[in-house]
Amino acid sequence: MNIYDVSQKAGFSIATVSRVINGNQNVSEKTKQKVLDVMKEIGYTPNVFARGLGLNTMQTIGIMCSDSSDTFLANAVYHLEQNLRKNGYDSFLCCTGYDLHTKQKYLKLLLSKRVDAIVMVGSGFLEPNKKDNAYILEAAEDMPIMLINGYLNHPRIYCTLCDDYQAVYDSVNKLIDQGRKRVLYLYNSKTYSSIQKLNGYKAALAANDIDLDENLIQMCPNTLADAHELLTSLATSGLKYNAVVTSEDLLAIGAIKFIKQAGRKIPEDCSVIGYNNSLLASCCDPELTSIDNHVETLCISTISTLMRVLSGNDVPNKTTISNDLIVRETTNF
Amino acid sequence: MNIYDVSQKAGFSIATVSRVINGNQNVSEKTKQKVLDVMKEIGYTPNVFARGLGLNTMQTIGIMCSDSSDTFLANAVYHLEQNLRKNGYDSFLCCTGYDLHTKQKYLKLLLSKRVDAIVMVGSGFLEPNKKDNAYILEAAEDMPIMLINGYLNHPRIYCTLCDDYQAVYDSVNKLIDQGRKRVLYLYNSKTYSSIQKLNGYKAALAANDIDLDENLIQMCPNTLADAHELLTSLATSGLKYNAVVTSEDLLAIGAIKFIKQAGRKIPEDCSVIGYNNSLLASCCDPELTSIDNHVETLCISTISTLMRVLSGNDVPNKTTISNDLIVRETTNF
Repeated sequence: MNIYDVSQKAGFSIATVSRVINGNQNVSEKTKQKVLDVMKEIGYTPNVFARGLGLNTMQTIGIMCSDSSDTFLANAVYHLEQNLRKNGYDSFLCCTGYDLHTKQKYLKLLLSKRVDAIVMVGSGFLEPNKKDNAYILEAAEDMPIMLINGYLNHPRIYCTLCDDYQAVYDSVNKLIDQGRKRVLYLYNSKTYSSIQKLNGYKAALAANDIDLDENLIQMCPNTLADAHELLTSLATSGLKYNAVVTSEDLLAIGAIKFIKQAGRKIPEDCSVIGYNNSLLASCCDPELTSIDNHVETLCISTISTLMRVLSGNDVPNKTTISNDLIVRETTNF
Repeated sequence: MNIYDVSQKAGFSIATVSRVINGNQNVSEKTKQKVLDVMKEIGYTPNVFARGLGLNTMQTIGIMCSDSSDTFLANAVYHLEQNLRKNGYDSFLCCTGYDLHTKQKYLKLLLSKRVDAIVMVGSGFLEPNKKDNAYILEAAEDMPIMLINGYLNHPRIYCTLCDDYQAVYDSVNKLIDQGRKRVLYLYNSKTYSSIQKLNGYKAALAANDIDLDENLIQMCPNTLADAHELLTSLATSGLKYNAVVTSEDLLAIGAIKFIKQAGRKIPEDCSVIGYNNSLLASCCDPELTSIDNHVETLCISTISTLMRVLSGNDVPNKTTISNDLIVRETTNF
């Protein structure tokens, strides 16, 4: 018995049933009664219902994150905890790693601890194969699920994303405007967010009538040593480029080091743009121009949405936040 | 009723009572029976007892960390989770911030979730005022507490520390051996570990008969901007130094940037040594010589100790791990 059964039997949309469950005012008394009757009839009592009645709440939110040693994710976790605390909520964090089985196990564990909602941080949380995300949709029947930098379509899943597509599109476009038509793009994963970034890169080339050279798109593990090895082998193969855009700051710093060693000047001979605007971007020399995905704003927006959901408000399921290019010394913008 | 009452009434030390509670074999049958009788008589049934009998265990460990956006702490959390998982344990992480009241609240929350033990990460966890750590001693009555980079004396608290004193002592000593007798020391907090580092600095000077110049010891918030501001004002005041040692890599990178801007050569005119051997140390230019406190080894050792404690073994309460100096380009060692 789940929310779908209630929806089908009552003859209302899942969104309507969800509104009733959450005590939202925008439902007629008649609709509300019908939904509650059906719920009683088929014996459906979701945790959220008890919560809506002010029972059973632990004022605790579960946070799931795949890798706390990743700078972006660690910062996100920090801001989530801070904002939850400001709103009177405690939080439990589970660092799940990238294995699907472990993610599922941790989600179950959090559900058993009766948290009020779950926040999943990072696009690494979603599996490329849709079927593998079914456990998240299932959990959403029991409590609100918040996704940061991921998107799943479900009335009880609320997604906050940064506009990674637009950010890379704009950056590559700016480089092309300056005559940098050979833009090397380095990325390190195939997550939702990574695919958005890559699509932005391709779209900027297309918009400028530049043919795609597949050799300029390279996947690379996110370490300085791997970046160095890849760039060395590309140089040996004779690949030419006059700009580098990367999906992570660390890869961009690898590029800076390689380009300097090769005796080329940054940004005169080659521009470099990183992603995340992490602490690393200010530590290298020259300092790195980087796309800021506003991790703090993402987290504030997520928690503010969550608080409205928990108060029974009708809240849009998807919020997209624009990114900013933070210009430092590796570009002459 | 707590373990002290049992100890007093039974006429055995707390360590002995603790051994009985944990099912340790190194207790005579007679002693064991006496302790169990007293526990029954005064109605003391700690959670650990139930756990020792194989009841009630959730196979879940609570991790408390003051600030997940700190690179060292975030890495520690990552390695703790990995090692717990390898041992079949789940973990809950609470990021408490630095406020004592919040730390206490989170500890209570974890106790209420019946975790099997608690790991507290980072020397920031202990308060300078002893009285303020009483809540940790109290919690240790109910379950084992593991401290990373902190020390409290209690039979159920197990501490794993890096030898920060020795690491700074050795580094400063090496600099002095090269004739660098004006070593500027920058630090950012007054935690247990920070005080050990500072003591190491002072001891190295003393061992080389160099008078302490208090102007060479400077506290500075852990940001590039603050480091720049401090170093500018020290330069204005005419302070001279030919080496910089810091309690954090980021402060060392601030120093590198300032020294380069001032037209001095690194390491020829001034050596720089950072602390933590974080990712940052490889990102700057020249790359930073840094003290590696072996975060992974610290965590592996902590979890291995914990597993032995949970199996009822008698385990030493304090383990100290030596640090290594990772030599890169900012020193001519």
